[in-house]
Amino acid sequence: MMGYKLLKIIFYGLKLKTPMTIKSKALKNIVSEEIKFVAEQENIDVNELIEKIKSGKVVILKNKYHDVKPVGVGEGLKIKVNANIGSSPEHMDIDEEIEKLKMAVKYGADTVMDLSLGHLLKKIRKKVLELSPVPVGTVPIYEVGFMLSVRKKRIEDMEIDDFLKVMEEQAREGVDFMTIHAGLTLKAWEYIKKGGRVIDIVSRGGSMLAVWMEKRKEENPLYTHFDKILEIAHEYDITLSLGDGMRPGSVVDATDKPQIHELVILGELAERAWKAEVQVMIEGPGHVPLNEIFTNIQLEKKLCKGAPFYVLGPLPTDIAAGYDHIAGAVGAALAGYYGADLICYITPAEHLRLPTPEDVKEGVIAAKIAGHIADLAKGRKEAFERNYKLSKARKKLDWEEQFKYVIEPEKARKYREESEAKNKDICTMCGDYCAVKAINEILKDIE
Amino acid sequence: MMGYKLLKIIFYGLKLKTPMTIKSKALKNIVSEEIKFVAEQENIDVNELIEKIKSGKVVILKNKYHDVKPVGVGEGLKIKVNANIGSSPEHMDIDEEIEKLKMAVKYGADTVMDLSLGHLLKKIRKKVLELSPVPVGTVPIYEVGFMLSVRKKRIEDMEIDDFLKVMEEQAREGVDFMTIHAGLTLKAWEYIKKGGRVIDIVSRGGSMLAVWMEKRKEENPLYTHFDKILEIAHEYDITLSLGDGMRPGSVVDATDKPQIHELVILGELAERAWKAEVQVMIEGPGHVPLNEIFTNIQLEKKLCKGAPFYVLGPLPTDIAAGYDHIAGAVGAALAGYYGADLICYITPAEHLRLPTPEDVKEGVIAAKIAGHIADLAKGRKEAFERNYKLSKARKKLDWEEQFKYVIEPEKARKYREESEAKNKDICTMCGDYCAVKAINEILKDIE
Repeated sequence: MMGYKLLKIIFYGLKLKTPMTIKSKALKNIVSEEIKFVAEQENIDVNELIEKIKSGKVVILKNKYHDVKPVGVGEGLKIKVNANIGSSPEHMDIDEEIEKLKMAVKYGADTVMDLSLGHLLKKIRKKVLELSPVPVGTVPIYEVGFMLSVRKKRIEDMEIDDFLKVMEEQAREGVDFMTIHAGLTLKAWEYIKKGGRVIDIVSRGGSMLAVWMEKRKEENPLYTHFDKILEIAHEYDITLSLGDGMRPGSVVDATDKPQIHELVILGELAERAWKAEVQVMIEGPGHVPLNEIFTNIQLEKKLCKGAPFYVLGPLPTDIAAGYDHIAGAVGAALAGYYGADLICYITPAEHLRLPTPEDVKEGVIAAKIAGHIADLAKGRKEAFERNYKLSKARKKLDWEEQFKYVIEPEKARKYREESEAKNKDICTMCGDYCAVKAINEILKDIE
Repeated sequence: MMGYKLLKIIFYGLKLKTPMTIKSKALKNIVSEEIKFVAEQENIDVNELIEKIKSGKVVILKNKYHDVKPVGVGEGLKIKVNANIGSSPEHMDIDEEIEKLKMAVKYGADTVMDLSLGHLLKKIRKKVLELSPVPVGTVPIYEVGFMLSVRKKRIEDMEIDDFLKVMEEQAREGVDFMTIHAGLTLKAWEYIKKGGRVIDIVSRGGSMLAVWMEKRKEENPLYTHFDKILEIAHEYDITLSLGDGMRPGSVVDATDKPQIHELVILGELAERAWKAEVQVMIEGPGHVPLNEIFTNIQLEKKLCKGAPFYVLGPLPTDIAAGYDHIAGAVGAALAGYYGADLICYITPAEHLRLPTPEDVKEGVIAAKIAGHIADLAKGRKEAFERNYKLSKARKKLDWEEQFKYVIEPEKARKYREESEAKNKDICTMCGDYCAVKAINEILKDIE
């Protein structure tokens, strides 16, 4: 204990010399480069942005050692989209993961998470961090679990230092945000054990910690040692993404006691992070029926005092495997309209296999459409302008102009080219019976 | 005039001997075959169904001369999906249209509309009516417009008898429901001419009638002669689908004066149809931002006294060309949850070209997902059961059992097969780090 206290004194001594976090700067009203950049990107007043960072309602994702464009997430900003990439022990290919990264960024992902598992995980992460133009997130416990298995150990053999070592190593490499499942406590696990859920736990990190707690009969070490996690996060200016290990994996389980219990704890942890001048987001479900999405968003905003909400979907049905990107877009558009800030994409491969680069493309586009629908419904000016300009071009039957504003011009252009319409202005849907053309002509006659 | 009156007397004389409409039977509390069949299909009490048909809140689609399974649409019933097929003058191929019909039905379309234009339109319609196991709808004014152009005439040369002749011919062939743009009046057209819309009219039928009114300086003939339309509809037991010629074609134009003016008229026409013992649905938008969908549904339900609402999407953004089936699923899920009864699918080809059979498949699946999400959110038992059973199978890692409940087993199975997982129970997403597997094992240990 004395050793740790001594280390802590040395740490805080050093900390005085180390640069402040983005959060610290905001608290001191310092207009840092990151804050300036995000304010310009979002077309928002710098002081307003600073106030939002102070209150925790906005985070700026950027590790201080990562050469990457900072991305703002939270209230009043454009809804962002995250793409999960990464290998699994069953399928590893560095080139394929880099292709996925490029695909995700090409189609508009604002952040990526590298969820790699398997012996190539470090190599893949380094390459992703090197090549990604957008902030990169990870789930450090994955690497911890994998390294233990390499040493023929089990997850319950994990000591907190194993975790902190991996976390710091990833932080040093430049990871911008990290999922930390610190809110899944013994209490929530007791609820699960008592039964009642159709699918108990679907979070990979959550399951690791549940097994750890069950085998060790001890509290979640990420919860008990949360201060140490905050120290590393502060040192490298990492935004913590507080993971929802208890997220429902079936619409039948949505908004239940284990989930909401964890959310309460996540709110407490968020406040501790803020006190430590560390930025924090809250991760959310998961499988949620459409009629419960509003409640889920409002609960997060209330219990976590406005911390940005990073949602996985939500999926408003369990039956869309193969088309979960479409079900996810439905949930995400509504969640975004109600206040979700960062949408984790869902690909057509969800629930079936690791996504391919093509799946990544489909997933990102579906999530971007959802985010845009929500931004438009929330009255965001740039979203309105884009629809307005597209509609103006549509009225003029100006196809090239339309392609400037569509979500993905390549596919639109390809479909248009396949239409083989005789006249350049119309399409094969209606041919000469085009309503827009007929009305344009008659209105021209009237003028 | 005398001739017409005489015909009318003869008509009404004959009518006494002709079988009643489904609506007439419901009004007399007669449990007809159609009513019995739909009550069983929907697992709803026959008397409750009869009350809903009486009040106009439910329609049963079936032309009395069409050998087809009746389909119920409206309050308290499962949300239905319609697929539009049909050639355009630019692209005609009977086999392709039949392939689209088969594709639509295979993936779960509850109704199809044949919107064919071009010289093959009659042949296509006859084939569709012959082969379709689900009710078939048309928009008779398309054929009227096309036949006029064949005779080197223009739409404004149309007389009401041209229209009624085509309508009756199609009715005799067995068309189950017909879109009639009778609510687009001179008044609404005046609103359009005054300007204010980004895209004036996007409805094909609506544009034909607007041109007719402008050239003739007369009221919409489908409005002025609505009684004659009702007579034919009654004779063949056709459900009228009152078309929204004023539907917005841009989110910027949504919920505006021309649209709502037309909706008021449609409500009046619905009451006239009910008096004539003719069943009626109301067609709805179109392009509507997410935050205006609720208002649109509620307005229809109020102004049209609960008549079933048949929505085209709605599309909550204009920018998704190439992916409009996804944007449409977002709008349709929400519209369905709020009370829309029949969802017209939108394919990835929308705004770009005529859909291919593959586009039809994608469109139907997206709309089915949306309808299911809405049914689940509305608490429909069979929707809940399906999610529950799938989730149970997912917990057991029983893949074959899961495929029984997914929206489209072929794609799910294909993805699963591509996953090449070493173990039969897991998938390549997480490999041995499968959360479900880990928790199943530890919970088994505890027991």
